[in-house]
Amino acid sequence: MPNSHLSSLYAGSFGLMTDLYQLTMAYGYWKNGWAERRAAFHLFFRRAPFGQDYAVAAGLELAADFLQGFRFSAEDVQYLGGLTGSNGQPLFNEAFLNYLQRMTFRCDVHAMPEGSIAFPHQPLLRVEGPLLQCQLIETVLLTLVNYSTLIATKSARIVRAAQGDSVLEFGMRRAQGLDGAITAARAAYIGGCHATSNVKAGQLYRIPVKGTHAHSWVMCFGDELEAFRRYADALPNNCIFLVDTYDSLTGVEHAIRVGRQLREAGHEMVGIRLDSGDLAGLSRQARQLLDDAGFPDAAIVASNELDEYSIQSLKDRGAAIGVWGVGTNLVAAADQPALGGVYKLSAVQNEQGEWEDRLKLSEEAIKTSNPGRQQVWRRYDGERPVGDAIQDVRDEAPGQQVWDYRTQAYCDLPDGQWSNLMQTVFRGGELVYEFPDLQAVRSYSLGEQQRFAHIDSSRYPNGLTSPLYERKMHLVATVEE
Amino acid sequence: MPNSHLSSLYAGSFGLMTDLYQLTMAYGYWKNGWAERRAAFHLFFRRAPFGQDYAVAAGLELAADFLQGFRFSAEDVQYLGGLTGSNGQPLFNEAFLNYLQRMTFRCDVHAMPEGSIAFPHQPLLRVEGPLLQCQLIETVLLTLVNYSTLIATKSARIVRAAQGDSVLEFGMRRAQGLDGAITAARAAYIGGCHATSNVKAGQLYRIPVKGTHAHSWVMCFGDELEAFRRYADALPNNCIFLVDTYDSLTGVEHAIRVGRQLREAGHEMVGIRLDSGDLAGLSRQARQLLDDAGFPDAAIVASNELDEYSIQSLKDRGAAIGVWGVGTNLVAAADQPALGGVYKLSAVQNEQGEWEDRLKLSEEAIKTSNPGRQQVWRRYDGERPVGDAIQDVRDEAPGQQVWDYRTQAYCDLPDGQWSNLMQTVFRGGELVYEFPDLQAVRSYSLGEQQRFAHIDSSRYPNGLTSPLYERKMHLVATVEE
Repeated sequence: MPNSHLSSLYAGSFGLMTDLYQLTMAYGYWKNGWAERRAAFHLFFRRAPFGQDYAVAAGLELAADFLQGFRFSAEDVQYLGGLTGSNGQPLFNEAFLNYLQRMTFRCDVHAMPEGSIAFPHQPLLRVEGPLLQCQLIETVLLTLVNYSTLIATKSARIVRAAQGDSVLEFGMRRAQGLDGAITAARAAYIGGCHATSNVKAGQLYRIPVKGTHAHSWVMCFGDELEAFRRYADALPNNCIFLVDTYDSLTGVEHAIRVGRQLREAGHEMVGIRLDSGDLAGLSRQARQLLDDAGFPDAAIVASNELDEYSIQSLKDRGAAIGVWGVGTNLVAAADQPALGGVYKLSAVQNEQGEWEDRLKLSEEAIKTSNPGRQQVWRRYDGERPVGDAIQDVRDEAPGQQVWDYRTQAYCDLPDGQWSNLMQTVFRGGELVYEFPDLQAVRSYSLGEQQRFAHIDSSRYPNGLTSPLYERKMHLVATVEE
Repeated sequence: MPNSHLSSLYAGSFGLMTDLYQLTMAYGYWKNGWAERRAAFHLFFRRAPFGQDYAVAAGLELAADFLQGFRFSAEDVQYLGGLTGSNGQPLFNEAFLNYLQRMTFRCDVHAMPEGSIAFPHQPLLRVEGPLLQCQLIETVLLTLVNYSTLIATKSARIVRAAQGDSVLEFGMRRAQGLDGAITAARAAYIGGCHATSNVKAGQLYRIPVKGTHAHSWVMCFGDELEAFRRYADALPNNCIFLVDTYDSLTGVEHAIRVGRQLREAGHEMVGIRLDSGDLAGLSRQARQLLDDAGFPDAAIVASNELDEYSIQSLKDRGAAIGVWGVGTNLVAAADQPALGGVYKLSAVQNEQGEWEDRLKLSEEAIKTSNPGRQQVWRRYDGERPVGDAIQDVRDEAPGQQVWDYRTQAYCDLPDGQWSNLMQTVFRGGELVYEFPDLQAVRSYSLGEQQRFAHIDSSRYPNGLTSPLYERKMHLVATVEE
């Protein structure tokens, strides 16, 4: 069973965690006798974040936790009974409210595992089940998958820029509340960050936690050398001294003096932290001072509004930094603070129980959604991915040809073996997927990132199988008539 | 007592919701015998968000909820006992862990009420109490106050741009998790938004909830006219038809046809919603169609990546839009996704129980923090604010002169009466403040915004009383020696 922070943090039912229009539509479906018709929806993004070609999918375990707790309590239903429309009369009738309160989750959910590399238009989740239920869960599925995928992807970018150095997530104070901070720490770890400052996230997910002291420690004792000594007395096995409260290089010298005392007592200073000023120049000078003083293994940690761009720039300028603390720009994904994931109806059963395709037209052809019930395949030449295909489950497995989004044309793929990326997570509302722990998710994610590290992803084929593409074009022509 | 969503949503203790370095510093204070010394910290921002001169303060009730639940459970302490340092030995000893588990919150908290207009450097909160406790709560106070203040301020900007039109918060799917979404809805309402789509936020805070249907409703039935009819049958008192699934103006005509049927049945169509295309042009054409058809009161709702800039631009271009649905750009505050609020030590008692000032120097004088135990006063000429002063509680009430941050010089204020902006929220860990309900907070906020609407805030004096400024300069000189 999923063991994300949602089930352990949140008290109560999740039913009202949705947009009101999901409930008014649910009521409309129910009144029209469509509530129990089976429908299929897909959750996907049209553009990968940060100008990338792909994203690191995340948030599935949170989504599963939500779905397991998706029900309406008596209080929820009572609240809904009090909502009124434009004429002051109730929006919802009693029979519907009773239906909601008796409802249990009965959908099938198929999804890419967390940590997978996902390209635009590929379903991260496919939900099939009673139309009413598929609709009600839209908002929270988007909330959970959008943010986690955004942050896992941002984290992967920052970790890549750090070229093997450790990256620590320090953003708790700039997140959207406590759950946001924990979600950020979790997703950052999936993306490749090595540790977090967020102790609750550490407890919940066994993410390594890191931290030593802030400026307030030094300000409290006034004298920096005295402050470092007192810290070393208390925590001799956790000494990274923040050196910039007054003057960074003087701070390094104070750290060295205390580092020598620590060594005499049988401990080793772990390092120093720089939090302001010219991090490239200061880190080189600090490195020299530390090396000259016999502390070649003392780490230099940097923080202060870092992101993948500033890390790259500091690397280019020869910074002697070995550990990067990243906060605001990671958890707020400052250059693109939201992923525009969407959740679209793609098929619904008619009265005879036959699936009928649906799509959402758009003036931009690329925004026209795909019909059917989709899964995603990846073709491998040995270990090397050579192309992806979105396929309808009713068709046979993809062949050598896909209609590629990139070129807007059919293309032939290299020889290889197709592998289905999607797993069954819920069947008839029952959880049937065993969630790996977060350490395993992170390893999987790093492995998948590695597979794509040596591929020009801007030329990577990502398309539809020919039966799906032909069916889509036929449907577009029909709808446009 | 506070009644925010934190206490009703979150299960368990809040103790581990902090950065690890707060706990290692806490341990250091405790080992050095400083844990119980009284200290004073202030939470403030150095720059108002979005290039403004001030922010709308928010998040206090959430902070109070957190502080009331601030304790360490047996599981929390057990987790901390398992953390190790660089040598593999425990970070914390048993006696400290016992101390944490027995700890009860004992601080005093003074704060500006939610909805207040706050200028840079002014404490939104002052916390006084045992040094260890003041330190441990830093991270979450920042998390809660930063985000709420950011969104309340963004909301106020958007509401101002809408010039009296209704503004609806629709951003749940783009927030950082469920708590983030609820916090956003709450703060947006404080800032002036009229309603939210977030049903849980509606239940928790009695915020009006709004919503009708999405594209999926129309896609489900395929035929738009049929879809509108079916919606009107089910929810005749909640009819705002989303008209852009296929072609917006055809959609308006379909809405009009269903509107006529509704009217015959004794109901009135509420309006239509546009979600794509040229909103200015389409809204004018839709208005004409609706007016000509006898629906002059039908509202035109617009959505699609709106913010204060696009609303202003649409207004300038003569858009006939009366209701604005704002999502991503509000809850993610896309142009500045985090407020850089900080929390700084400013005084600590010595062994004799006398307060000693502290400050954090910075190369930029403006970033050097203020010492002492501060409160904020606002001077009124009748109803009109004429200047603010940060004062140390040990000094007498401010006089006619303040050292102004804006001009970096003393300035004389107009005649008027000083009013203290800060309220006592906790005394010795006991909550002594009665929180108004969110409707009252919103009214207060709108009133305060109105007071400043006719003031050139870029010329509004915001400074320190002369005793505080003199003391600060003396301290800077001492520290720099």
